[in-house]
Amino acid sequence: MPELVFPLDSTKRFTDQELLGHNRWHPDIPAAVHVKPGDSFRVHCREWFDGAIHNDDSADDVRDAPLSTVHVLSGPIAVEGAKPGDLLVVDILDLGPIPQEDSGPLAGQGWGYTGIFAKQNGGGFLTDQFPDAYKVIWDFMGGTATSRHVPHVSFTGIVHPGLMGTAPSADLLSRWNRREGDLIAQDPDRVPPLALPPLPEDAILGGLEGDAFERAAAEAARTAPPRENGGNQDIKNFTKGTRVFYPVYVDGAHLSMGDLHFSQGDGEITFCGAIEMGGFIDLRVELIKGGMEAYGVGENAIFMPGNVDPQYSQWLAFSGTSVTLDGTQHYLDSHLSYQRACLHAIDYLTTFGYAPEQAYMILGAAPIEGRLSGVVDIPNSCSTVYLPTAIFDFDVTPGADGPARIDPGMGVPRSSF
Amino acid sequence: MPELVFPLDSTKRFTDQELLGHNRWHPDIPAAVHVKPGDSFRVHCREWFDGAIHNDDSADDVRDAPLSTVHVLSGPIAVEGAKPGDLLVVDILDLGPIPQEDSGPLAGQGWGYTGIFAKQNGGGFLTDQFPDAYKVIWDFMGGTATSRHVPHVSFTGIVHPGLMGTAPSADLLSRWNRREGDLIAQDPDRVPPLALPPLPEDAILGGLEGDAFERAAAEAARTAPPRENGGNQDIKNFTKGTRVFYPVYVDGAHLSMGDLHFSQGDGEITFCGAIEMGGFIDLRVELIKGGMEAYGVGENAIFMPGNVDPQYSQWLAFSGTSVTLDGTQHYLDSHLSYQRACLHAIDYLTTFGYAPEQAYMILGAAPIEGRLSGVVDIPNSCSTVYLPTAIFDFDVTPGADGPARIDPGMGVPRSSF
Amino acid sequence: MPELVFPLDSTKRFTDQELLGHNRWHPDIPAAVHVKPGDSFRVHCREWFDGAIHNDDSADDVRDAPLSTVHVLSGPIAVEGAKPGDLLVVDILDLGPIPQEDSGPLAGQGWGYTGIFAKQNGGGFLTDQFPDAYKVIWDFMGGTATSRHVPHVSFTGIVHPGLMGTAPSADLLSRWNRREGDLIAQDPDRVPPLALPPLPEDAILGGLEGDAFERAAAEAARTAPPRENGGNQDIKNFTKGTRVFYPVYVDGAHLSMGDLHFSQGDGEITFCGAIEMGGFIDLRVELIKGGMEAYGVGENAIFMPGNVDPQYSQWLAFSGTSVTLDGTQHYLDSHLSYQRACLHAIDYLTTFGYAPEQAYMILGAAPIEGRLSGVVDIPNSCSTVYLPTAIFDFDVTPGADGPARIDPGMGVPRSSF
Amino acid sequence: MPELVFPLDSTKRFTDQELLGHNRWHPDIPAAVHVKPGDSFRVHCREWFDGAIHNDDSADDVRDAPLSTVHVLSGPIAVEGAKPGDLLVVDILDLGPIPQEDSGPLAGQGWGYTGIFAKQNGGGFLTDQFPDAYKVIWDFMGGTATSRHVPHVSFTGIVHPGLMGTAPSADLLSRWNRREGDLIAQDPDRVPPLALPPLPEDAILGGLEGDAFERAAAEAARTAPPRENGGNQDIKNFTKGTRVFYPVYVDGAHLSMGDLHFSQGDGEITFCGAIEMGGFIDLRVELIKGGMEAYGVGENAIFMPGNVDPQYSQWLAFSGTSVTLDGTQHYLDSHLSYQRACLHAIDYLTTFGYAPEQAYMILGAAPIEGRLSGVVDIPNSCSTVYLPTAIFDFDVTPGADGPARIDPGMGVPRSSF
Repeated sequence: MPELVFPLDSTKRFTDQELLGHNRWHPDIPAAVHVKPGDSFRVHCREWFDGAIHNDDSADDVRDAPLSTVHVLSGPIAVEGAKPGDLLVVDILDLGPIPQEDSGPLAGQGWGYTGIFAKQNGGGFLTDQFPDAYKVIWDFMGGTATSRHVPHVSFTGIVHPGLMGTAPSADLLSRWNRREGDLIAQDPDRVPPLALPPLPEDAILGGLEGDAFERAAAEAARTAPPRENGGNQDIKNFTKGTRVFYPVYVDGAHLSMGDLHFSQGDGEITFCGAIEMGGFIDLRVELIKGGMEAYGVGENAIFMPGNVDPQYSQWLAFSGTSVTLDGTQHYLDSHLSYQRACLHAIDYLTTFGYAPEQAYMILGAAPIEGRLSGVVDIPNSCSTVYLPTAIFDFDVTPGADGPARIDPGMGVPRSSF
Repeated sequence: MPELVFPLDSTKRFTDQELLGHNRWHPDIPAAVHVKPGDSFRVHCREWFDGAIHNDDSADDVRDAPLSTVHVLSGPIAVEGAKPGDLLVVDILDLGPIPQEDSGPLAGQGWGYTGIFAKQNGGGFLTDQFPDAYKVIWDFMGGTATSRHVPHVSFTGIVHPGLMGTAPSADLLSRWNRREGDLIAQDPDRVPPLALPPLPEDAILGGLEGDAFERAAAEAARTAPPRENGGNQDIKNFTKGTRVFYPVYVDGAHLSMGDLHFSQGDGEITFCGAIEMGGFIDLRVELIKGGMEAYGVGENAIFMPGNVDPQYSQWLAFSGTSVTLDGTQHYLDSHLSYQRACLHAIDYLTTFGYAPEQAYMILGAAPIEGRLSGVVDIPNSCSTVYLPTAIFDFDVTPGADGPARIDPGMGVPRSSF
Repeated sequence: MPELVFPLDSTKRFTDQELLGHNRWHPDIPAAVHVKPGDSFRVHCREWFDGAIHNDDSADDVRDAPLSTVHVLSGPIAVEGAKPGDLLVVDILDLGPIPQEDSGPLAGQGWGYTGIFAKQNGGGFLTDQFPDAYKVIWDFMGGTATSRHVPHVSFTGIVHPGLMGTAPSADLLSRWNRREGDLIAQDPDRVPPLALPPLPEDAILGGLEGDAFERAAAEAARTAPPRENGGNQDIKNFTKGTRVFYPVYVDGAHLSMGDLHFSQGDGEITFCGAIEMGGFIDLRVELIKGGMEAYGVGENAIFMPGNVDPQYSQWLAFSGTSVTLDGTQHYLDSHLSYQRACLHAIDYLTTFGYAPEQAYMILGAAPIEGRLSGVVDIPNSCSTVYLPTAIFDFDVTPGADGPARIDPGMGVPRSSF
Repeated sequence: MPELVFPLDSTKRFTDQELLGHNRWHPDIPAAVHVKPGDSFRVHCREWFDGAIHNDDSADDVRDAPLSTVHVLSGPIAVEGAKPGDLLVVDILDLGPIPQEDSGPLAGQGWGYTGIFAKQNGGGFLTDQFPDAYKVIWDFMGGTATSRHVPHVSFTGIVHPGLMGTAPSADLLSRWNRREGDLIAQDPDRVPPLALPPLPEDAILGGLEGDAFERAAAEAARTAPPRENGGNQDIKNFTKGTRVFYPVYVDGAHLSMGDLHFSQGDGEITFCGAIEMGGFIDLRVELIKGGMEAYGVGENAIFMPGNVDPQYSQWLAFSGTSVTLDGTQHYLDSHLSYQRACLHAIDYLTTFGYAPEQAYMILGAAPIEGRLSGVVDIPNSCSTVYLPTAIFDFDVTPGADGPARIDPGMGVPRSSF
């Protein structure tokens, strides 16, 4: 095990730990840890809601999820010698649930959860079709996930960090605030909102105190979106063995990470959509001096996925186009066409006996693939979603006899406002 | 070889063949061929522009590409007993370039092409960055493609039909025309257009004649977009061994196909973007009676990809978010985030010495993967594009020494208005 | 299609063709075809028994298979400039059954066969357990094989040439004859024989005539075994896209090939064990001058398999050790341990209802993997055999309920002396 | 983490632990642990020589390796309700090096070793070519192994237990002793020996004491070979996610395991040939009552490999036939043909600058594939060995320019008698 540089004690809240992380992006947050190029080290990560979601059969906690508190991140980690303009090379050596703890109240202790946010509190990809809150608990058995809320399905998790990135420069941060503010201004009262502005309430800013805290909290960026610095990219392919290259915007790079996922489908379509957990991540860092200009990587991570992802060889795929459910034609809207592909997959799975929300949860948590298949054939883009058939314990492919019927069991806990 | 039911003679134009296909969708086009469930058969397909694009070093033909003439399709093929509400099961047994012909003036005779349309004549995914016309010729060697216009790259093609589908019912057709007309009406003079309305000019409607032809030509749908019936989905994973399930909207199903691609990246991002060719396709058909309702498949093909796709195990990936190049924040726009990911990949490849249009062509033609990685993290969606590193004959991964420099050769022919 | 340099007419016997191939190895056989480095070309190949095995339900033809006549090979093909000491680079661009012919009396015309030789006429890997002759007919549907004699199984073929190689030098040939003669002399009357000596009867030697023919026929090597020149290696991974490097022993290299297989499991354990067929193969040749010494490749082909092999992700595997069925311990005998692993697989499959010979045929023809798992743990080597579970249309994995029972159908035709 | 039922303290010798394992097979060894069907649990495993091999640059420890002491095994674990005739289902949930310890004197604490035994002390697959002792130390970085003794190579380990199995019945044990004794009697003084007879010296038999110990020690089977009960199969594909089915020969099944490997090539050709380490393994057990007869599995494990093995898509392969280096023809000897294939691979790698023993070590430790390609083509079997080209940091494929030359560095420590 590499040296543990950012420990977390599962019995204590995120704000009561030996080292304090953060839940906003700001260049002034001081480094909590210092490492050197070539170093390998272990970091503990807390699940993104710091224990607010429980291993039970009620979705009230997801309905009331405290979105102002996320994501609790480990870091910043300063890398010696990193300067703006460099590329920070991050090798994901290993990662997983909380080591040596396989039961307990904290997601990552042998279990994780997938949630669908209520439209009034966050929403999600299919929030018009699923306006209420739902929750599914997944049990981990080695690399495999199963759920009492979604029977007849079992899959090898594609473990990855949902969120990792470097600190923004002051200039970059102000650009974020400006452009996201402009967007919010287009419809400030929208539910769910178009974007999340800086929010001092519940801000955690590592070692910042007093006036410095107040100033930073007022302008620090929320962690929900991915941005130039990486951030909450939710790329399911950041698996063990992956090498990521991050742009460096501040001295020391200030790498932070969190939001570990035991598994996730492309898109994380339920928003709280991966299998959320806390755990550990082992990293190794290097620098490519001046790499941003040399390789033309001014923003957004580039990466090379690892070679131990779960292998499935038979897939059942669904396609969608950029026409809304009520028949309105949109212009090359790949977001919409992926929604339609996912809705088709949900419709299909319900013919076997699943409730729609069970099918939705499968798409959010299992290692499904979502592809931009056609993006130029005006006016319809075509997106496709691929389900590995081997995750089901019944034959999920179409045949002359019609769909087999499964027992959907107790179903998915639901909670509405 | 299964029985050849739709032959094409490479020495004759599409309209001078023994059997006449079509280039518009309309329920009244009579079946050119009749088959039975369980039948296997071969169909010849002409490249989508019927020979208008040549194997030379000028892009004038792509600049002036006759968009009113596409796509020339083989069919309709009536399947005995197929009724609206059934699912038509289509097995892609085999497909490839024009058999026994490896040289000649027709794409598919040992070569194919990738084009970038000029903004004034079609446009494309990155038309603001690449407003002119470009063309690349690819040579086929077994399953491998190489190009004099894009040196240092060689890849195993992922051969598939870009377009296949069943005939729409009259009702479905009128819905298409209504919704697409509504879209066009929002900006009728846009260049490139928002959608393509029915166009009697250059319409080919199989056996229709006289008044019936005129009536149908005035309302027949263009073939560019994918729609409920499948159509121009450009799904690169429709490879040998694939099983596709199409909704049936008219008696006999009336299956048609064309637009064969020797290879294509996810998205077909250059529009004329796959490696276009004519060739053959061997199919087998079956029916699932009443399958549309039984499986909840009211529209859009579902499919199971084949298991002989080219295997690559090392990938270099790029990510993008829904912020425009000039810094405007959009709301969860996965189309935009895929554009940004592709532009990042292009920027990267140019640091090795490629011209931007060479890099763009690689993304259009090679078996790259495009994924909807994050679609919920407001306001930024995150899309990713994966390049197989083994297609390059130099080391394309980032390292401490900076990018190796390749000789880009003669470059990509260009033509502007 | 590359230029066809070695055509075969399906209506004529191998000895009545425009160009005459050969069925023995000898350096004096003159080149039938001349090509240059960099050339691509097509070669037709006849199935190894030249039509003696029929598409019917009797195994008499396999019982009486004329082993003195095999393998009918296409070539020799002289490569301009090739000299002893070079490596001949052969790219397998494409290959398949007889093009444009999907029915007829010749294996390769839409069908192929797998045989088990009788112990008295050839024998095989498990000849003590299966002393009689058996035959299975497989039908090709695109890339897929099925059989009326082995129901409930269907697999993607792993198409490859069983036999390809360069001509031996006179010196190499004499070494072969000496060492194989020494082996035969150890037990000259063994049934089946230990090796096959030169046999003038039924020898075909291309353009050799008169005394030259007689002299060569008396010493020409049989084609059954693989040797330094490649030859009958029966490596199932010589698939489309493969690059093979052959040692060159004579001027012009004199490449020959044949024994095409639609599919085969590792080992070709039934001897006549792949799915045998005639067909075509498209090749491209190059030279590495002096490559034998430069790369230390004095004998036996080295190769890089193609990347479009059928992909299966779930396997059921069986292990065996070097103890005979009657309990005698052998010392690190991987041949024996593979026999035991295969016998275990056969025993297992019979519990589902297959006859033992049906199971044996599956192992011979489907793309199973056979591995040398442990070769040092005295006194037992451990070999393993992997079956792709997806080739069965029932659940072939072990479970608490015991094996499902399938209907074995008409079974495998058998014939005994 | 599942409950730890068999702990090992890295600071203490195997015989000084809280629970005592064993290093011989005998039905009388009492269970050290009791579990129930459905239980998941963790087991610690000590490296097979209990710390006798050190992380240094001398091979003296391998030369003098105490073969009488191996393999130190964890167990026996009794499974409630298991009866002779059942199949014991073992799921390998997870496994890896010693958790939370990445440096220290014990293999598994961040490092492992590969050894070649001297011919006078164990020997190995190529002992005639490599009669001395050699040792290579590998460092673990996440899932990757590199070595100061073998530069320019780096690979993803294929982690697995080399040895796992159930206890033999008294009858089965006596059969082993009889047949192996018969073999030894054929050449009792052979070096290396043909097999290893029972050896009371250094025997560890768990809880057995006094007369019972003496009696059992005199007849207990050595652990080197794989046998009917599984045992030292060294199957590299027993990776995370694998399900193994073991025959049960005694009440409670009495499962034991050890000999963890960070990685290994097919065959474990250097004998001490995998990357040896201690560590942990998480297992889950179930029973199929009466499964041995129901599925025809009377002996030798059957198994389904996991789906997270390292993926490589480009391979360089070598073939060999059953002719000895001095030109003697053997009859269908797949053991010999695999030796020849491996020797060809070694010869090849030396042309790039590696010492032969470096090449041998790569073949022993990296996830190479060894296949029984042809086993029927009298008199030559054909075996093949596949190297993943991506494990080298230089281009290892053949080309016109000849092999690149690498710096072999300090080389492999060697020690001779």
